[in-house]
Amino acid sequence: MTLEEARAKLKTLQEKMAAYGHALGLLYYDGATTAPKATAANRGQTMGVLSEELYQLTTGEETVALLEFLDAHRTELDEREQRMVFLLLKDIRRMQKIPMDEYIAHQRLIVEAEDAWHTAKETSDFPLFEPYLERIFADTRKFAGYCAPDTDPYDYWLNEYEEGLSKARLDEFFGTLRAHIVPLLQKVCSAPQLDNSMVKGFFSVERQDRLSRRLMEVMGLDPTHVGLSTTEHPFTTSLGSHLDERITTHYHEDDFSSSLFSVIHEGGHALYDTGSDDSLAYTVLDGGVSMGIHESQSRFYENLLGRSRAFCDYLFPVLCEVFPDEMAGHSAEELYRALNRSEPSLIRTEADELTYCLHVLVRYELEKRVMAGELAVHDLPAEWNRLYREYLGVDVPDDRRGLLQDSHWSGGSIGYFPSYALGSAYGAQFLRKMKETVDVDGCLRRGDFGPINDWNRAHIWQYGCLYRPGELFEKATGETFDPTVYTTYLEQKFSDLYSL
Amino acid sequence: MTLEEARAKLKTLQEKMAAYGHALGLLYYDGATTAPKATAANRGQTMGVLSEELYQLTTGEETVALLEFLDAHRTELDEREQRMVFLLLKDIRRMQKIPMDEYIAHQRLIVEAEDAWHTAKETSDFPLFEPYLERIFADTRKFAGYCAPDTDPYDYWLNEYEEGLSKARLDEFFGTLRAHIVPLLQKVCSAPQLDNSMVKGFFSVERQDRLSRRLMEVMGLDPTHVGLSTTEHPFTTSLGSHLDERITTHYHEDDFSSSLFSVIHEGGHALYDTGSDDSLAYTVLDGGVSMGIHESQSRFYENLLGRSRAFCDYLFPVLCEVFPDEMAGHSAEELYRALNRSEPSLIRTEADELTYCLHVLVRYELEKRVMAGELAVHDLPAEWNRLYREYLGVDVPDDRRGLLQDSHWSGGSIGYFPSYALGSAYGAQFLRKMKETVDVDGCLRRGDFGPINDWNRAHIWQYGCLYRPGELFEKATGETFDPTVYTTYLEQKFSDLYSL
Repeated sequence: MTLEEARAKLKTLQEKMAAYGHALGLLYYDGATTAPKATAANRGQTMGVLSEELYQLTTGEETVALLEFLDAHRTELDEREQRMVFLLLKDIRRMQKIPMDEYIAHQRLIVEAEDAWHTAKETSDFPLFEPYLERIFADTRKFAGYCAPDTDPYDYWLNEYEEGLSKARLDEFFGTLRAHIVPLLQKVCSAPQLDNSMVKGFFSVERQDRLSRRLMEVMGLDPTHVGLSTTEHPFTTSLGSHLDERITTHYHEDDFSSSLFSVIHEGGHALYDTGSDDSLAYTVLDGGVSMGIHESQSRFYENLLGRSRAFCDYLFPVLCEVFPDEMAGHSAEELYRALNRSEPSLIRTEADELTYCLHVLVRYELEKRVMAGELAVHDLPAEWNRLYREYLGVDVPDDRRGLLQDSHWSGGSIGYFPSYALGSAYGAQFLRKMKETVDVDGCLRRGDFGPINDWNRAHIWQYGCLYRPGELFEKATGETFDPTVYTTYLEQKFSDLYSL
Repeated sequence: MTLEEARAKLKTLQEKMAAYGHALGLLYYDGATTAPKATAANRGQTMGVLSEELYQLTTGEETVALLEFLDAHRTELDEREQRMVFLLLKDIRRMQKIPMDEYIAHQRLIVEAEDAWHTAKETSDFPLFEPYLERIFADTRKFAGYCAPDTDPYDYWLNEYEEGLSKARLDEFFGTLRAHIVPLLQKVCSAPQLDNSMVKGFFSVERQDRLSRRLMEVMGLDPTHVGLSTTEHPFTTSLGSHLDERITTHYHEDDFSSSLFSVIHEGGHALYDTGSDDSLAYTVLDGGVSMGIHESQSRFYENLLGRSRAFCDYLFPVLCEVFPDEMAGHSAEELYRALNRSEPSLIRTEADELTYCLHVLVRYELEKRVMAGELAVHDLPAEWNRLYREYLGVDVPDDRRGLLQDSHWSGGSIGYFPSYALGSAYGAQFLRKMKETVDVDGCLRRGDFGPINDWNRAHIWQYGCLYRPGELFEKATGETFDPTVYTTYLEQKFSDLYSL
């Protein structure tokens, strides 16, 4: 095999992977948006077959030989090719270490666990889900042991979800958040509450849909490449490449702010994905590099921009057009206050900007302790409830609104949650850097996202997965990561809002 | 390989084929219903890769060896297995005879031709499309020559679309239709026209959507397995198996009858597909056996049932619920007349029950002559227009509303059109047989499709592709095919409606 032949094969391999990814992504998307109710098993059958085909493709002898050949010629490859080979080999080397039968059994466990979780959540029945969660944590520990016997199992998975991440780094990070946010929240809770009645009422799906389209337009999402659908739990997905992106939302007719921020949040993900350089399409470098950086973009648009005072100056007149009766007699300043009401609550996905990271903190502490064998799965609900009391000051009435609320663990994702909080904090530092050269508030007041998007594209989006998350962060900001930028931002914003 | 091993491999092969079919079908469906506008090339990339994978799977050495092994053990196989092997081998033997490079070039031609056709249709520019259509006809002839050198090329393709079909059979069939329908239509055109003003007005998409759901319910379509979406040109597709079926419609707010009959027509396709015995799922025997039988079901529900006097007794009160203002002062009898107004027109898909087959007749005569080398592609528009004048009595103003109206030829489907007319005629004979044991009119008046669907399921649907179309027809009716059953039905219905 010559290097040129290998390069051609590398291209073909990635095109095939993109095609299978497209099909699997579309099957998931269809299931979450359009498919008739009783078709999940039929879809599961197809996803099972195609996943197996993709697995054979990415881990088959021919692929391994190709990648090892390219790895041996590493120095002759350019930066992009080196990164492609690294990422592809990383997955293979993990897969090679996990016995095939255990991997398949685990995949089957996940399907059953998700099913059990759905039922358990509906009926708030943790004991039903408990044996599945036991096995998921056990497999997660075991697989980490196979892949990296000398590494702490939780550290292994943290690094899988966000290259470079570890318990040590997260302990410090979450320690900083806890030290600043918990006392800040206590002060907020003692202060007079902000009035958010202007976002409540009746807002028809049709009018909210019109608002969604306006928001996508102002954010600079190209409607010929980015679609909007409705679903139960909003998400974003790229199909095949960054050239076909789908965002989703969920309309609550009694409160327009839920979909408003879903659209802006998912729109942030979509901007990041679609901002990849076009030449990365159909390669493993296409799209966002990690969950942490992805959340840094989605939560950047949702909170740092979308919930800012400046953006409310732009947004309020738009709302007056879409909901003229409901907005009558209100102002941009009132809107700002309504959209920033902070209130300790039970559900992560509905949490406000200030309390959000505390929800993630609870999950981090719990999964870390279970992974370390310091906490039994059986005791998770009690610990969950205790920490919600301690950090958020709320009593969890049942497991449905407690540890059964999120699907991540049932899907086998242990070590994934921290990226949500990390992304929030990354975003604050990106914003500080961006403000050195971009009049962000001026842009937001005019509804001109161009210069903001240009900065993000130039410093973050265009690279796709070329750089490791930490490397990308440091290239973009010229600084090391400092979570106090985020906590300072929160302290200033909420002290001002609540006149602390 | 033991026979048991081969059986297991046959099962796996078909499951894989179903999975690729599911993915490709969903990609098409997504493109036609939901996908953002500028994502076709991205989707094409994925469909290209997956089609190639499916091609390798179905024609690869391992598959050929398996099927030939099974074919050699034919007598030890049961009826279903024999049919599976026959159908799978049939496709392979065709593919083996077409040189790979020519096949790939043809696939590429189709993609470009569809693109050219779109533009040509928009701008009514036949010369733009002409060279593509030339090459499509040339390839079609050439491939027939590779596959069946001793068979007439058009006969070859007719038999591919509908096993057992030939020019000789169709000449007789269309001869009968022409002899009865052309003079009948002339009489209809000389009689006073029926009033269809009650279906015109303003009918919002929301209300029409409500009507669609009611129709699907009364037809017995299970909403947990059959979805409804909107698209430009309505179609139906099974995804993975008959357990996930999608129908589509197109709402015209100025005339509710268009979507009304789209839903009933596509609903008929969906009933047929979803009526396959569940044990056929993930095999090549799942779903409808041919286009002709498929149209016999869709057009059966649309016309023989949906446009019947008895069904209008049920439908009118439903319409009064959905469109109370618009239906006020009208009656079921008026509805029956409005829905059966017959008028020679230009567009096949919008044609009424009486004129529909004449549109198909034109296409049959033209493609037959081009395939035989008796008519040049260049002369198609003039001939098209001449025949529309002769059979339908209308002048074609431009090619957009002439021979550029349908996508079939641009997609490489030559020999496909006749099945539309054939299905219409099959349906009339099914109905006559059904009426021997089912009180069809009584069922329709009550909106009780149960006994009708039961008959179709017992005699047609459950078998999937187990029997050849002609065999299935004769098993169901106990008769040979007789197109005068259909022409007699039309003569009675329209003589009565137009008091001839």
